[in-house]
Amino acid sequence: MDAPLKGKSIAFLATHGVEQIELTRPWQEFMDAGADLQLISLNAGRIDAYHHLDKGDTFEVDKPVGDARAEDYSALVLPGGVANPDALRMDSAAVAFIKSFFSQGKPVAAICHAPWSVIETGEVRGRTLTSYPSLKTDISNAGGYWVDEQVHHDGGLITSRRPADLDAFCARVIEVVCAD
Amino acid sequence: MDAPLKGKSIAFLATHGVEQIELTRPWQEFMDAGADLQLISLNAGRIDAYHHLDKGDTFEVDKPVGDARAEDYSALVLPGGVANPDALRMDSAAVAFIKSFFSQGKPVAAICHAPWSVIETGEVRGRTLTSYPSLKTDISNAGGYWVDEQVHHDGGLITSRRPADLDAFCARVIEVVCAD
Repeated sequence: MDAPLKGKSIAFLATHGVEQIELTRPWQEFMDAGADLQLISLNAGRIDAYHHLDKGDTFEVDKPVGDARAEDYSALVLPGGVANPDALRMDSAAVAFIKSFFSQGKPVAAICHAPWSVIETGEVRGRTLTSYPSLKTDISNAGGYWVDEQVHHDGGLITSRRPADLDAFCARVIEVVCAD
Repeated sequence: MDAPLKGKSIAFLATHGVEQIELTRPWQEFMDAGADLQLISLNAGRIDAYHHLDKGDTFEVDKPVGDARAEDYSALVLPGGVANPDALRMDSAAVAFIKSFFSQGKPVAAICHAPWSVIETGEVRGRTLTSYPSLKTDISNAGGYWVDEQVHHDGGLITSRRPADLDAFCARVIEVVCAD
C-alpha cells in the first residue's frame, strides 16, 4: 500500500517551544503516507521550534485553534517540547479541541511532554500511557497508569517518550488511523 | 536593620533553563540583606539561564547537589523556568535535597514552574500554594490547594507565580528566614 493514509486528514496542534523533530518527522511520514495535514496553533502566524533548548526553525500555522473543529480531522498529533504543552494547556480552546477528539472517538497521539495537555482534558484518568519521564508523577496523580515503553496505545491515546521513539510512534499512528 | 539575613546561608537549586531574573533578583536582594549564598546544581560547571525562550547568561555552580546537605543552609530557593524544574525533578539527589529542607523544618521558596520539583517530594499534599498557572492542575492532582496570589506562605513553603511577583516573593522570604 503506497498511501495508507490517503483520504485521512490529520491535525498537528503545537505552539512556540515545540520540539522540532517531533513536529517534522511525523509530518513527513504522514505526508508520505498520503494524509492531508494541518498545523493548528494558538494564533495565526508562525511558531518557533526548538532542538531541546536551542532555537530551530519557524513553521507557518494553517489555522488558529479557535477556528478548528475535530469533525474535520481523522486524528490529532501532539508533538512535545517542554514549553509547548505548558502553553497549550492554559488555553481553553486548545484543551477543548483536544478533548473533542476523545469525545468523537478519534485517535490522539502525544509524544514526550505533550501528555501535559492531555492531563488538562481529564482524559488521562484510567488510561495507560507513557511520556517523557519527568511527567510520570503528574500522569499518575491525574489517574493515569504510566509505563516505560517506546509506544503505548490505550483507549485511542497513542503515546511515546522522546524523539528516539519516533519510528515506533509514527508506525503505530499510521496503523491506528488506517484501522479507524 | 541593614543586614537582616546576616549569619544566614541560603541555597539556590537550579539547572539549565532557569529563568534568569528568578535567579538573579532574589540572589541580589538576599546578598544585599547579608546572607551567604550558594548556587547548587545537578553537576559542577556552569548553567545556562533563559529569558523565557531566549538564551541569557551562564552562571557558575558552587556545588553539585550530590555534595550538598540541607544541614548547611537556613533556607532553599527554587527559581523557575519551564525546563529547569522539569530536569531537577528527575534527579533523585535533587529531590532528596529539597525534601530534606521540609524534614528539617527549613523554609523552601519556589516561584513560577519550580513547584513541579516540590510535587516530586510529596510535600505539596495538604499545603496551599501558588505557581505559574500552567501548574494549577498538577498541583491540585498532587493534593495541594492552588491559589492565585502574588505570594503565599504555608507550612514553610513560600510560593509566587511569575517574575512580576518577585518584589513580594523576596520580601516574604526575607521575613520568613529572619523569623526562623
